[in-house]
Amino acid sequence: MGEAPIQHGGGISAAAERHGGRPEDWLDLSTGINPCPVPLPAIDPAAWHRLPDRSRLDAARRAAMRYYRSENCLPLPVPGTQAAIQLLPRLVPPGRRVAILSPTYGEYARVLRAAGHEVDAIATLGEVRDEHGLVVVVNPNNPDGRLYPPEELLRLRERLVRSGGMLLVDEAFGDMAPGASLAAHAGGLDGLVIFRSFGKFFGLAGLRLGFVLGEEGLLADFAERLGPWAVSGPALTIATGLMAGDCAPIRERIAERKAALDAVLQQAGLAVIGGTALFSLVSHPQAGTLFEALCRQHILVRPFAYDPTWLRFGLAPDAAADRRLARALAAFDP
Amino acid sequence: MGEAPIQHGGGISAAAERHGGRPEDWLDLSTGINPCPVPLPAIDPAAWHRLPDRSRLDAARRAAMRYYRSENCLPLPVPGTQAAIQLLPRLVPPGRRVAILSPTYGEYARVLRAAGHEVDAIATLGEVRDEHGLVVVVNPNNPDGRLYPPEELLRLRERLVRSGGMLLVDEAFGDMAPGASLAAHAGGLDGLVIFRSFGKFFGLAGLRLGFVLGEEGLLADFAERLGPWAVSGPALTIATGLMAGDCAPIRERIAERKAALDAVLQQAGLAVIGGTALFSLVSHPQAGTLFEALCRQHILVRPFAYDPTWLRFGLAPDAAADRRLARALAAFDP
Repeated sequence: MGEAPIQHGGGISAAAERHGGRPEDWLDLSTGINPCPVPLPAIDPAAWHRLPDRSRLDAARRAAMRYYRSENCLPLPVPGTQAAIQLLPRLVPPGRRVAILSPTYGEYARVLRAAGHEVDAIATLGEVRDEHGLVVVVNPNNPDGRLYPPEELLRLRERLVRSGGMLLVDEAFGDMAPGASLAAHAGGLDGLVIFRSFGKFFGLAGLRLGFVLGEEGLLADFAERLGPWAVSGPALTIATGLMAGDCAPIRERIAERKAALDAVLQQAGLAVIGGTALFSLVSHPQAGTLFEALCRQHILVRPFAYDPTWLRFGLAPDAAADRRLARALAAFDP
Repeated sequence: MGEAPIQHGGGISAAAERHGGRPEDWLDLSTGINPCPVPLPAIDPAAWHRLPDRSRLDAARRAAMRYYRSENCLPLPVPGTQAAIQLLPRLVPPGRRVAILSPTYGEYARVLRAAGHEVDAIATLGEVRDEHGLVVVVNPNNPDGRLYPPEELLRLRERLVRSGGMLLVDEAFGDMAPGASLAAHAGGLDGLVIFRSFGKFFGLAGLRLGFVLGEEGLLADFAERLGPWAVSGPALTIATGLMAGDCAPIRERIAERKAALDAVLQQAGLAVIGGTALFSLVSHPQAGTLFEALCRQHILVRPFAYDPTWLRFGLAPDAAADRRLARALAAFDP
C-alpha cells in the first residue's frame, strides 16, 4: 500500500460532487489528452468476442514500429503506461538508488518507493550519481515541458550502462515532438527503455493502451509479467488502424487547439511558463484561488500539491469552450 | 521467465498456418467462451475518450455486486483474470507451499512456480496438508468439470485460515452454476478470494475483464498493484450494461448449444467424461489422431499435453457448425 494515492487528472466526478453540476457539463481541462477524439475505425466483431490472437497482437506491433519509427524494435503493447510503471521496480539493480527528473508524473516515485526503493528527485540530469541504477526522464516532461535533446539522453544512457544501470525515457507526450524521440535507438542499445502512450495523442485514454520499447529480452520479461492477452482486442484493432492512418490532420487540430488555449491564457494576462502540445503550465501567485474560482464555473484544471503557484491547463475541445474559459478567467477577481 | 509458455485456446492463426485455410473460416472449438456473443450495449463516447473515472468504476462494481450476489463485497474489476493470477504469488505466506487441485487451468502453476513457489498438484482436496499456505480450486473445474459444493470449500477455508492460509476459488465457469458459488461469502470471511471471468459467459473474451472478490484490504492491495485505470472504459461500460440486463436468454442459448454439442459427440460414439456448460471433455484412445483429423477439416479443439487421451470441445455457434462437426467426426477413421 505505501504511499498515499495521487490526485490525477480525470476526476470530474469528484469535482462535480464538491461544486455541483452534472459531470458531463463540466469543462475538463485537467488532463493532457487530445480533446478531439479521433473517429474510431471499424472494430471487427471477433476483436470483442475472441481472446486477442497472436495475429492481432503482431499487427499492432508492426503498426507501432512504423508509427514510432523504431526499426530495431517491435514495441510491446501494454494496458496503459501505468501497467508498465507497475513493473518498473524490477528494473532497479539490487542495492542501487533511483533518480527521477522532477517534478514530473507522480506515479514513478509512488510505485518505486512503495516497492522499497530509495528515490531521489533530481532537478537536472547533472545530479545523476554513480549510485543511481535507474534514471527516469519524462521527455518532454509533464508538467513543465522540459525537453532534452536525444544526444544528451544517449550520453546519459552510455554512462549508466557502464555501471550496470538503465535509462527509462517516458515519451507519453512525444507524438508531437518526433525529433526528440529515442525510439529509433530502442532495441539496438542496451540499458534503454522507452514508454509511449497511445491514448493521449489520439484522444482515446479510455482504451488503456501504451507501448514499451527496448531490448528483446526486456520486452519478453515484461510480456511474461503481464501474462497472455494483457491488452484488449478492440484496443489492438483500433491502434493498428489509427497508427497506419494519416495523422497529419490530428497534428494540425492539436496545434490549432494549443494555439487557441495559449491565446486565451495570454489574453487573461496569465504567465505560461512551460507545457507541451497537449497542455500549458501557468504560474500564478494565487493559483489556488484561481483553481477554486474555475471550479465554481465548473471548469477543472490541474493543481500541484508540490507547487501552489502552478496550474496546468489542458486543451479545450472547440472555440465555444475557449470562450467559456476566457469568460471564467476574465471574471476572476482574487 | 521460468516455465515454458502454455498452449492455450484461441490459437486459430497458428493452426491455420500449419493446416491451411483462412483463420476466419476455421471452426474454433478450442476455447470455453460462449460462441454467441451478446449484443453490445451502446458505448458512451466518453468511455473511449476519457480515463475511466471513479463513477464509471463504481457503477461497474455495483452492477457486479448485484450480478454475483456478493452482498458483502464490491467486486474489483481487473483486466482479465490472468492479470489477477499474475498477482497471486504475493498471497502465498512465506515459507509455505501451494496446492492446486489438478489437472486444471495451467497458468496457476506456471505463474506461481515462476515466482519461486513450491507447487503441489493435488488430485483431491483430501491431499491438502498443513504446509499449504494457498490452495487453488477452479470450481467448476476446467477441463473436467468437477464441482465442489460450497460447504466443502467453506470447511477447507476454515482449516486453512487456522494456519494463516488462504483459499482461492476460480469461478471462471460459474455463471451457469450460481448455486455452487461462494460469492455470497466474499468479503465477510477472511482467507477467501474468488476470481470471476466476465468474457466467457457473455462471449466477450476480447474485452479483457474479470473480477476479484474478497476482503476489502485484499482488494485494495490488488488495486494498488494494478495501478489506476487498470480496466478500459468501454469494458466497464459494457459490463455495467450487460450485468444489469436480463441474462435468461443468454443462459437458454448456452444450454441449447451445450445440448447440441453433446448430441453430436454422442452420435459420433465419443465418451463425454466431464465438462461445464461451456465445453465438454472427451476421452478417446486416439485423441491425438482425432485432433489432427479435425485440424485437417479446419476444426480446432483443445488437446492436453498431460493427458493424450483427452480432447476438450467448446460450443459450436449454430446448427450449421454442429453439422460441420458431426460430418468431420463421422469421417474420422483412425
